[in-house]
Amino acid sequence: MIGTVSRAAQVLQAADRFIILTHRRPDGDTTGSAGALCLALRKAGKTAYVARNAGVTKRYAGLIEPYAPPEGYQPQCVVSVDCADIDMIPPEMQQYAAQVDLVIDHHRSNPGFGRENLVMGQRAACAEIVCAVIEEMGIALDRDIAEGIYVGASTDTGCFKFSNTTSNTHLVAAKCLEAGVDGGEINRALFETKSRARYEIERMLFSSMEFYHEGKIAVALITLEARQRTGADWDDLDAIAGIPRQIEGVEVGLTLTELENGDTKVSVRTTKEVDASAICTQVGGGGHLRAAGATLHCGAEETIQRLLEATERVYRGEA
Amino acid sequence: MIGTVSRAAQVLQAADRFIILTHRRPDGDTTGSAGALCLALRKAGKTAYVARNAGVTKRYAGLIEPYAPPEGYQPQCVVSVDCADIDMIPPEMQQYAAQVDLVIDHHRSNPGFGRENLVMGQRAACAEIVCAVIEEMGIALDRDIAEGIYVGASTDTGCFKFSNTTSNTHLVAAKCLEAGVDGGEINRALFETKSRARYEIERMLFSSMEFYHEGKIAVALITLEARQRTGADWDDLDAIAGIPRQIEGVEVGLTLTELENGDTKVSVRTTKEVDASAICTQVGGGGHLRAAGATLHCGAEETIQRLLEATERVYRGEA
Repeated sequence: MIGTVSRAAQVLQAADRFIILTHRRPDGDTTGSAGALCLALRKAGKTAYVARNAGVTKRYAGLIEPYAPPEGYQPQCVVSVDCADIDMIPPEMQQYAAQVDLVIDHHRSNPGFGRENLVMGQRAACAEIVCAVIEEMGIALDRDIAEGIYVGASTDTGCFKFSNTTSNTHLVAAKCLEAGVDGGEINRALFETKSRARYEIERMLFSSMEFYHEGKIAVALITLEARQRTGADWDDLDAIAGIPRQIEGVEVGLTLTELENGDTKVSVRTTKEVDASAICTQVGGGGHLRAAGATLHCGAEETIQRLLEATERVYRGEA
Repeated sequence: MIGTVSRAAQVLQAADRFIILTHRRPDGDTTGSAGALCLALRKAGKTAYVARNAGVTKRYAGLIEPYAPPEGYQPQCVVSVDCADIDMIPPEMQQYAAQVDLVIDHHRSNPGFGRENLVMGQRAACAEIVCAVIEEMGIALDRDIAEGIYVGASTDTGCFKFSNTTSNTHLVAAKCLEAGVDGGEINRALFETKSRARYEIERMLFSSMEFYHEGKIAVALITLEARQRTGADWDDLDAIAGIPRQIEGVEVGLTLTELENGDTKVSVRTTKEVDASAICTQVGGGGHLRAAGATLHCGAEETIQRLLEATERVYRGEA
């Protein structure tokens, strides 16, 4: 941790006229954290807005767009939430990025690019940290504040399913439900609703899936034609690479996406038996132990061949 | 609520030589609750076993089978967990069912069939109540006890996703993680792993799905041939009826399953716009507002026709 919750609360108490920054390709945690913090600051009698984020999708727009600043707004204090580095701040916010007064984040890799920094790498979601800061300021969670915090905590943990979920995540969720958040309705929208494009892509993924190495390797292909026909955007493809690995017995899921320029993007997801990064580094990519990726300058067929060979080498202990 | 947590704790403190009963077609809540209670009672120096349940599936067997009683075991105190009624106790446990000394349950409909009854209808999972009783007895949660409680709480709430999840559910989950439970690993096994049979059925479901009424009605068919070919059991078909409704714009999901005798079972899932039971009562079935079902004595084709007509009548306000 750099900085303390109480120091962050002091910084916020001392200022007025806030602008809150979110990151590129905004997700539920950055938008939920920003919306919650904005509402809490307003509840404390301050002026606060959330900077417009050009990349916000329909799913999360409602959390920040109502708090867009008026033309010519001049903030006194710039706060970023969930931004791992200065580069993660989108170009349309550059006017504010020159000096970030307070960084609130949960990415361990955050260099502390603000004047003040509250970075807690052990938290699953930035929203958990925002919740602690709000409470430290003596501001009671109401339903609207809690909704942003809940969305942040639930989306960054796969609805409390992933291993990054801690007891603190659950304690924060408990407080949000106490404050009146309708978790069931939010989760249905976030986790149980598939766009038609997503459905079409999944249908294709399911029907195209092939198995190798006694069912331990599953290969799925998302063709460029299918993406164009369905109009699927990157939101629709979110977390789709996790699907092949869900099948019993599958240790390596290879999900290929044909790109517009003829390249093929591959996302590798593995169970604990196999090192995903060891597969991807062989073809010029990289990543983590169980999730890695690469982009190959060739078509799908050649990509499959090369990935299967790379995977077999890992199985043989040669890579 | 009938009874209190402290009264239930007293009953348990006063006895020794326990047998714990689970319900028919046992799920994560009944098995998790039973395993946790058994371990807690043992930790308190008592003798405790969980009665053998013939219907337990591979998924949950590890929570209760290690605690099966020895031949000829004579209990002094019979406790049921998560059993909504005496009829829910499987035949192989009839020797114990004549007098249940303590009923611990969360089904509002529970008539209180025990000598003593702790029924808390506001709890999402029976495991939450078991947790409260264990704590009331002054027994500290350890990792093994907490694992059963966590499985119960997470499975009965769709991993904290459904609207039955309360702040108490999250508080219990927080305690379980504090006690050392590996929630990520448990959830991967419970929620992120599809059997090959399940995968084949889903693949078929996806490719067969048809849409009616401007995309508001989705119809999916699971053929007898597919069930037989894949070897899918009812565990593999668990919650599959929820899939069509997940698609954006779908208000009514009709999932048909061909039965061995030529009948067709239909499961109807709706969003809040449409009354599922109003559809099913027209064809001799019934159920709840958003989840209902029926079995029709005809083939799939005729079933689809009749269900579509019934649904249209609900849309027109005629049923």
